[in-house]
Amino acid sequence: MTIEFNPIGIVQTREKKLPRHCSISDVEGTLVIGEKYVEGLKDIQVGGQIVVLFHFHKSPEFTQEHLHQTPRGRSEAKGVFSICSPVRPNPIGMSVLRVLDIRDNVITVRGLDMMDQTPILDIKPLVTEIPKNNSGA
Amino acid sequence: MTIEFNPIGIVQTREKKLPRHCSISDVEGTLVIGEKYVEGLKDIQVGGQIVVLFHFHKSPEFTQEHLHQTPRGRSEAKGVFSICSPVRPNPIGMSVLRVLDIRDNVITVRGLDMMDQTPILDIKPLVTEIPKNNSGA
Repeated sequence: MTIEFNPIGIVQTREKKLPRHCSISDVEGTLVIGEKYVEGLKDIQVGGQIVVLFHFHKSPEFTQEHLHQTPRGRSEAKGVFSICSPVRPNPIGMSVLRVLDIRDNVITVRGLDMMDQTPILDIKPLVTEIPKNNSGA
Repeated sequence: MTIEFNPIGIVQTREKKLPRHCSISDVEGTLVIGEKYVEGLKDIQVGGQIVVLFHFHKSPEFTQEHLHQTPRGRSEAKGVFSICSPVRPNPIGMSVLRVLDIRDNVITVRGLDMMDQTPILDIKPLVTEIPKNNSGA
């Protein structure tokens, strides 16, 4: 069963050297969203944080040898579902970004760990309430 | 440009009445992952939390009228990118689930807000470090 998605926009940044994760990034850039989705950007707050799902569009094809990978700066290989590697069965990335500005269909953000021209799949609110019934093992 | 993904597994749960968000769910069920990905499940910790990306496979097609939606229990319509509605341009869902057990290719979880047979797209670690360079507006 194949599932098809179409990007809602693209990432634009001049930065070429990107950090390995958004939590340690202060790279700024813009999310340029398709004009037909502008109305959907209502309620995104300047100063707040958003979750951005995107396509790792430059990743090599995933093969069985990528099931274990050694993350940068680590010495041991880990299972692909326990790391943030861009080489995954479905190359979907997830970043939490700070919103610096919104004008029409262009969102200026900080915290980028995606490369220029990365296709954006979705924007979601960052839900940070402490789970009531979901704690403990 | 169309991007194609194939599910890595499916959700199984007997629960028919699901909460509107995983943060208020104590529904248990299993994630049945394709056997060819079993090695990639290494390092997922029982007792820990995982981020699961999935396909809202029962959502109606997104149209312009869905750009603003009124969430359950709210009185005002909000932009689609500021709510967790399953009706979105790309119907990808994201949940944070508690891992109760792992046996071979089957992960038992708590916190489900997906329906039975939901296709799973990806599993990621929950990264909760406080960002160093990404705070403040």
